[in-house]
Amino acid sequence: MLVGGIEAGGTKFVCAVANEQLEMIEKISFPTVSPEETLKQVFAFFDQYHVAAIGIGSFGPIGVRPDQPKYGYVLSTPKKGWENFDVLGTLKSRYSIPMYWTTDVNTAAYGELKMGAAQGCSSCIYVTVGTGIGGGIIVDRQIFQGISHPEMGHFFVKRHPEDTYKGCCPYHQDCLEGLASGPSLEARTGIKGEQLTADDPIWELQAYYLAQALVAYTVIVGPEKIVLGGGVMNQDHLLQKIRRHFLKAINGYVQVPSVEEYIVRWELPNESGLIGALLLAMELTNQ
Amino acid sequence: MLVGGIEAGGTKFVCAVANEQLEMIEKISFPTVSPEETLKQVFAFFDQYHVAAIGIGSFGPIGVRPDQPKYGYVLSTPKKGWENFDVLGTLKSRYSIPMYWTTDVNTAAYGELKMGAAQGCSSCIYVTVGTGIGGGIIVDRQIFQGISHPEMGHFFVKRHPEDTYKGCCPYHQDCLEGLASGPSLEARTGIKGEQLTADDPIWELQAYYLAQALVAYTVIVGPEKIVLGGGVMNQDHLLQKIRRHFLKAINGYVQVPSVEEYIVRWELPNESGLIGALLLAMELTNQ
Repeated sequence: MLVGGIEAGGTKFVCAVANEQLEMIEKISFPTVSPEETLKQVFAFFDQYHVAAIGIGSFGPIGVRPDQPKYGYVLSTPKKGWENFDVLGTLKSRYSIPMYWTTDVNTAAYGELKMGAAQGCSSCIYVTVGTGIGGGIIVDRQIFQGISHPEMGHFFVKRHPEDTYKGCCPYHQDCLEGLASGPSLEARTGIKGEQLTADDPIWELQAYYLAQALVAYTVIVGPEKIVLGGGVMNQDHLLQKIRRHFLKAINGYVQVPSVEEYIVRWELPNESGLIGALLLAMELTNQ
Repeated sequence: MLVGGIEAGGTKFVCAVANEQLEMIEKISFPTVSPEETLKQVFAFFDQYHVAAIGIGSFGPIGVRPDQPKYGYVLSTPKKGWENFDVLGTLKSRYSIPMYWTTDVNTAAYGELKMGAAQGCSSCIYVTVGTGIGGGIIVDRQIFQGISHPEMGHFFVKRHPEDTYKGCCPYHQDCLEGLASGPSLEARTGIKGEQLTADDPIWELQAYYLAQALVAYTVIVGPEKIVLGGGVMNQDHLLQKIRRHFLKAINGYVQVPSVEEYIVRWELPNESGLIGALLLAMELTNQ
């Protein structure tokens, strides 16, 4: 038996087919262009296999509640052609098999819990810091979902007193994403995030904001572990800075495990979302 | 059959006995003094009845995970004599009956969901704004708990540019509780919160901060409803101000129900915690 996984990102799509041992048989990746062109490539790939189920982790925001009219759709997005496009419906019209539909960060959170940095936990929060800031929550080893999926980068944090940058979130300007995503690094410094040196003072500011977010996740949700991933987290020094700011900010008020165990980096870099999607597909075949 | 409920507050204890229809047979209230003196009064009350179970909603922070050594204890608290006092153990040594042990805000959230402002919902967040700011989360009609209970007032919010008050939280200074609890109102104005007039500009600031907290709860958890209670919410005008600031802050990014349905006041004022405790006791008898 084979299962399929799709990480449907705003920049690129990754599709894979895996066997029951979750070994990938084939994996391809291509740029996200128009929905029609992109789905054509998805079909060309999966038409070659008989997969029993497909798990999809999509860029968002998306409709995730089956009782809502836009379930399966990409909702408001600046990505041309994708707003209100019915991804799940289009896939289902081609393949009459079970499909698991959720966000890319939810499948990543699931992948990290089952096979990555949060193995052995029953709950975790996965946060990606890259072009945007987003996250997924796992509770009782299940994807946690409220009235919609989380949008964990879009709340407000305490500004650093010396920070005068106005923020780059098109919706909220200086929410967490507006102050601490990859583009904010470049906007503040004029240098692309990946080219900034480890001793650039911007990283302390970055850690200051991200740590505040982790405090909020801790006092509101209280996961067993927080897993950080995404392009910005490729900066090796950043994790330790975030831990230090976290301890300072929470100031012993809430008991958490040791910060080295509590705040960790992803263990399936760039693959947690796809692996999570394959795992979720696999579980559909057991139902 | 009778059940007991205790709302164990930092200022006063309320104990009640109710029948199967949840009609209260007797209810008493007394100031929270030393643990020994206070529990003596609790015993004197419940010794009169044969209750089948007791639900307890306690001031916190408390040990809520049965697998932890301090399960049933009040943890760090400035309240004299209560730090590390084993409330649940003391009650259990007197009465060998099932007991439900959680925070006062969790029982309040449960009371509001089952019989108050969030009836018919399967999830809600209850937030109390008074001496402190705290909250409880209900998901799938159950109290939601992570590695500890939520401490929903102790994260950071964006300061209003004109606000120079340093904040009154002993742990975090200018976290949400430090900037928007009852004592912060008095510290800023020199006037007790309940004596401030509705046109005092402080309320806009108060609403500005509370709305930010509701944005965080919404994008992280996404409950079906947010129920606001506590002394400060007795200000009738405040709810509408909070709704207005919330809409402005979230800026349409996340779809929520109409704000009048989504952000509401408690419907069991000052009793949600006790009623929730009785309901939880009742459910223990059905198990």
